[in-house]
Amino acid sequence: MEQSFLAYLRGRCRSLPQVAVGIGDDAAVIQPPQANLIACTDQIIDGVDFDSSEHAYADAGYKAIAINLSDIAAMGAVPKSALVTLALPKQNATRIAGDVYEGILQAAAEFQVAIAGGDISTYDGPLNVSITLLGDVPAGDPWLRSGAKENDAVLVTGFVGGSILGRHLRPTPRVDLANRLREMVDVHAAIDISDGLSLDLDRLCAASGVGVELNIPAIPIHDDAIMLAEKSGCTPFEHAWSDGEDFELILTMSQADADKVLAMDHECEITQIGTILGRTGLWKRVAAKLVRLSPQGYIH
Amino acid sequence: MEQSFLAYLRGRCRSLPQVAVGIGDDAAVIQPPQANLIACTDQIIDGVDFDSSEHAYADAGYKAIAINLSDIAAMGAVPKSALVTLALPKQNATRIAGDVYEGILQAAAEFQVAIAGGDISTYDGPLNVSITLLGDVPAGDPWLRSGAKENDAVLVTGFVGGSILGRHLRPTPRVDLANRLREMVDVHAAIDISDGLSLDLDRLCAASGVGVELNIPAIPIHDDAIMLAEKSGCTPFEHAWSDGEDFELILTMSQADADKVLAMDHECEITQIGTILGRTGLWKRVAAKLVRLSPQGYIH
Repeated sequence: MEQSFLAYLRGRCRSLPQVAVGIGDDAAVIQPPQANLIACTDQIIDGVDFDSSEHAYADAGYKAIAINLSDIAAMGAVPKSALVTLALPKQNATRIAGDVYEGILQAAAEFQVAIAGGDISTYDGPLNVSITLLGDVPAGDPWLRSGAKENDAVLVTGFVGGSILGRHLRPTPRVDLANRLREMVDVHAAIDISDGLSLDLDRLCAASGVGVELNIPAIPIHDDAIMLAEKSGCTPFEHAWSDGEDFELILTMSQADADKVLAMDHECEITQIGTILGRTGLWKRVAAKLVRLSPQGYIH
Repeated sequence: MEQSFLAYLRGRCRSLPQVAVGIGDDAAVIQPPQANLIACTDQIIDGVDFDSSEHAYADAGYKAIAINLSDIAAMGAVPKSALVTLALPKQNATRIAGDVYEGILQAAAEFQVAIAGGDISTYDGPLNVSITLLGDVPAGDPWLRSGAKENDAVLVTGFVGGSILGRHLRPTPRVDLANRLREMVDVHAAIDISDGLSLDLDRLCAASGVGVELNIPAIPIHDDAIMLAEKSGCTPFEHAWSDGEDFELILTMSQADADKVLAMDHECEITQIGTILGRTGLWKRVAAKLVRLSPQGYIH
């Protein structure tokens, strides 16, 4: 099916200036990035990251590109092009590929990403959508996990917890917001929340050799976390603390820059949830004493 | 297993200057290419492209990177960095990942490719190794399938046919040769042989809007094709004509450039197998008349 599907796909993919030669040669020829090239890859597997017995294949396609866009956003970068590899169950392969691409092309159009190339195989196994996303940082350095400094404010975008109720399939990667923030302030460190707020925050702190004093009541709990808590036996806070796949950003910057960001309206809520400490670990203040917290989340 | 395996992997991956930030952040930060960015992606699936009941997992890793290197060679490009996505069967996932990476790291070291990042999941299914390879063309334009011109000589590297006897697992991607040829002559069009000599030659001709008159006796038949023919019921020529996974290059260039190439010694044989015609199709001359030939190979 590969050749005929690729012919169909060439017709469906809009040409964008960043890709000089797209689908149909041995490799893609892509305009060079302005500065560093930013590259990430992530896969979505049926039965692991989504469930085709409950969800549409288009959702798998959308999610596969959105989670990569979230990684690109966490670098403060602009996404430019994608390579899409599909491993398709033999049965109904062409129909599934078409459905998956509906979601991929929708997300690609929303974020101006060109489909530069890919690979398609059929096999005895579940759908696997593996996407590599390429982008660049138009000005300044990419945001790393390792740049947090003592006394930085720690901000989080949106609301967290309970994404398993469905939000995880069609997340809003914070690409546009990240790029506006990059132009406005000096972000010291960033990470996207894929495995849980506390776990990913702990990773950022570990990479930076710092810790954080959290303002627990400030943590923006999503309505989904509250709804999920009614059945799960966990509290809404526990869901916000440890659920994965929020695809929100954790950002650190000077308190002065944070105050500037917090004073403005954005496409989503931005909340300060803590302050970076010189000592490692996650902490909250009880009376006058710091008490250590345990990061929790989805360990692969 | 992902976090601990990534920690192990960080220790195993040599740092190369082309990757500023590798495994361990949300995305990789890669030095920008000198001119166009060349990107390709290909996957190896257990039961489709190799068979873990017969072959070592390290071979799957080696093959996954080698087939991408072959695509990069077919563009006349220099490989620089790779993103590696593994979907691992749940049982023995860590051991399999380690074995696969032995092959990947061996090929990466041989071709000076930096492992810039990747993704790892476990699931109920066979091993899938999906690799995206990034490179660039240091000088001049990348080679496309579409550049062949009437009267071009058609050259092929190495010997073709019968790779299924084992050669397909550890092919020699013609990266070094391609880069020496790029410096020496003006290659008009190129493709690598992944689905069969005649089928891939037909694709090159179709992309260029030309055809080819083949010198059939000149086609360099591999000893494996002769060996395979003893059991298969096909002739050695039929294997050379239609077997896939040779990972040799088909190149077109002016006859004068071809004569220059053919007069020199290279790391492998280079053979002229035909001349580009203005009319489309694959042809051979019988007496004074052109007779049309049918391309055959592995249709995905």
